[in-house]
Amino acid sequence: MKIVDIYARLKKDLNHIEKELDRSVRSEHVQLSETSLHLLKAGGKRLRPVFVLLSGQFGRYDMDRLKNIAVSMELIHMASLVHDDVIDDSDTRRGQPTVRAKWDNRVAMYTGDYIFARALEVITQLADPRIHRSMSSALVEMSIGEMEQIRLFFHSGQRVRDYLLRIKRKTALLIAVSCQLGALAAEAGDVISTKLYQYGYYVGMAFQIRDDVLDLSGTEEQIGKPPGSDIRQGNITLPVIYALRQEDLNVELLTEIERIQAADGQTDISRFLELVLSSRGVQRAEALAERYIQKAIQVLEPLPAGRHKDDLIRIAHFVGNRSY
Amino acid sequence: MKIVDIYARLKKDLNHIEKELDRSVRSEHVQLSETSLHLLKAGGKRLRPVFVLLSGQFGRYDMDRLKNIAVSMELIHMASLVHDDVIDDSDTRRGQPTVRAKWDNRVAMYTGDYIFARALEVITQLADPRIHRSMSSALVEMSIGEMEQIRLFFHSGQRVRDYLLRIKRKTALLIAVSCQLGALAAEAGDVISTKLYQYGYYVGMAFQIRDDVLDLSGTEEQIGKPPGSDIRQGNITLPVIYALRQEDLNVELLTEIERIQAADGQTDISRFLELVLSSRGVQRAEALAERYIQKAIQVLEPLPAGRHKDDLIRIAHFVGNRSY
Repeated sequence: MKIVDIYARLKKDLNHIEKELDRSVRSEHVQLSETSLHLLKAGGKRLRPVFVLLSGQFGRYDMDRLKNIAVSMELIHMASLVHDDVIDDSDTRRGQPTVRAKWDNRVAMYTGDYIFARALEVITQLADPRIHRSMSSALVEMSIGEMEQIRLFFHSGQRVRDYLLRIKRKTALLIAVSCQLGALAAEAGDVISTKLYQYGYYVGMAFQIRDDVLDLSGTEEQIGKPPGSDIRQGNITLPVIYALRQEDLNVELLTEIERIQAADGQTDISRFLELVLSSRGVQRAEALAERYIQKAIQVLEPLPAGRHKDDLIRIAHFVGNRSY
Repeated sequence: MKIVDIYARLKKDLNHIEKELDRSVRSEHVQLSETSLHLLKAGGKRLRPVFVLLSGQFGRYDMDRLKNIAVSMELIHMASLVHDDVIDDSDTRRGQPTVRAKWDNRVAMYTGDYIFARALEVITQLADPRIHRSMSSALVEMSIGEMEQIRLFFHSGQRVRDYLLRIKRKTALLIAVSCQLGALAAEAGDVISTKLYQYGYYVGMAFQIRDDVLDLSGTEEQIGKPPGSDIRQGNITLPVIYALRQEDLNVELLTEIERIQAADGQTDISRFLELVLSSRGVQRAEALAERYIQKAIQVLEPLPAGRHKDDLIRIAHFVGNRSY
């Protein structure tokens, strides 16, 4: 079974979640409805809802409860993206103008606050305190990660562990929590929900590494934005950290990074991309992503065999190898 | 008994909350600890914690539970102030440089996100779903209010009801929720917590009207910032709306507002202040604040007589008449 088959099988429920997403952000306030729906319509893979639903299969699969988790996770993801776009001065995301580009930074900040508040409103419909605690802890870590990201902009001396901690906070935690809360909402029990949390964490790490590789090696058509956006914003990713370790590249790559920083990202970055792509950085990053995928699959071992587990394994492989 | 006596009696518990506030925002992340503690140390009246504690007196007064509400409410208030300062380009608050002035707008945005996440972490320690639902509904309304505020900047045609809805979202709701959740955390029952919600709402309305009057008529020493800050930011408050209704002032006042808007607030505003202070606007605004205080006291009628109720009545009077 392919990944499209999983999406096809979930289609009805994902459509339902799409409607709920729409409903949850609509407001009598015209501007907020506009900005929020602009974000919603820009689309996305709805990866977090998919993980919520797949994890919910391990218990009593009840869309009435699962939808609250799925919608909330996706809204938190969206809210953090709007705030990130302010920080990064991003003009496009997924081929669409960002809220801050179409409106302004102030509108983007408040749109993020609003979507975030809606996410809480949706998840507090469920009365399970474990759900709220797990979510709020993740939010604290995510917000620390946001600030840490600023500190590490253009910081070419950062270590692999700095990078890994950063993507944990930026991406892996919310995917981990999506899996965990999907299981908890379905009353799958603490053991299963903990395993799924770990699974989500490993998949999330692989996902972000793959994302960062694609930013360097993908085409604009594949990734919906020009390659090299990360370095323009000062975001030093894993392949670059690895490339910097190569003595034959280190000096020229450092010079390139300094030049890009000095130009505030507004300069030709083709030499930078050439250098990184000629290094072993991409390959090594892909190898690490693959190791995370293997760990994700391994952690599922104690779970009952069958289609639900196969779904998780398949989607893990997809995440680690996707080219879009 | 005077207001200082209430604070004196609550002193031990407020000190405890102060310590918890400090503890709750501390992080291994140096920058976030710095910005958050900078905010905490700028002080404030800690009005929301006071309302939480006073409301908690109507049930089983348990600091272990009440402190979670009090800390969370104050943190939400702080987080919204940091984001407001970004929108308003404010350089000082309570006589201290704002986070955005001392650091920058990006740091301020993420500090707000962080403090907000900490607020959720603290309140989700309590397992009562009513608490989380009430809080998240208030947050949605507050964030709509933030955006609405931008739309109404320098909008001299706005009505009294626009203003009242704005200050409801900006101030009254969080004070209402502070009272309500204080009562709920103390298991005071639904009737009492609903009455206290209404009380907090009315007091909050009076508080903000008084705040807006002081911005026009107070001295820099009293209010910790130069008078007229509101109009510089485009914030048209109740006394101004009333003054604009006076035919003898309308034309010149409109011209002044347009002039201040054209100068982006960076101009002499003494004539504007003169006009508003010579109008019946301040007096009428004060009269409305007083009516809210009367309503706040009235709504307490069904509550048991005694010291706890007297405290609420006294603090309501204080809020409506304070000069700082």
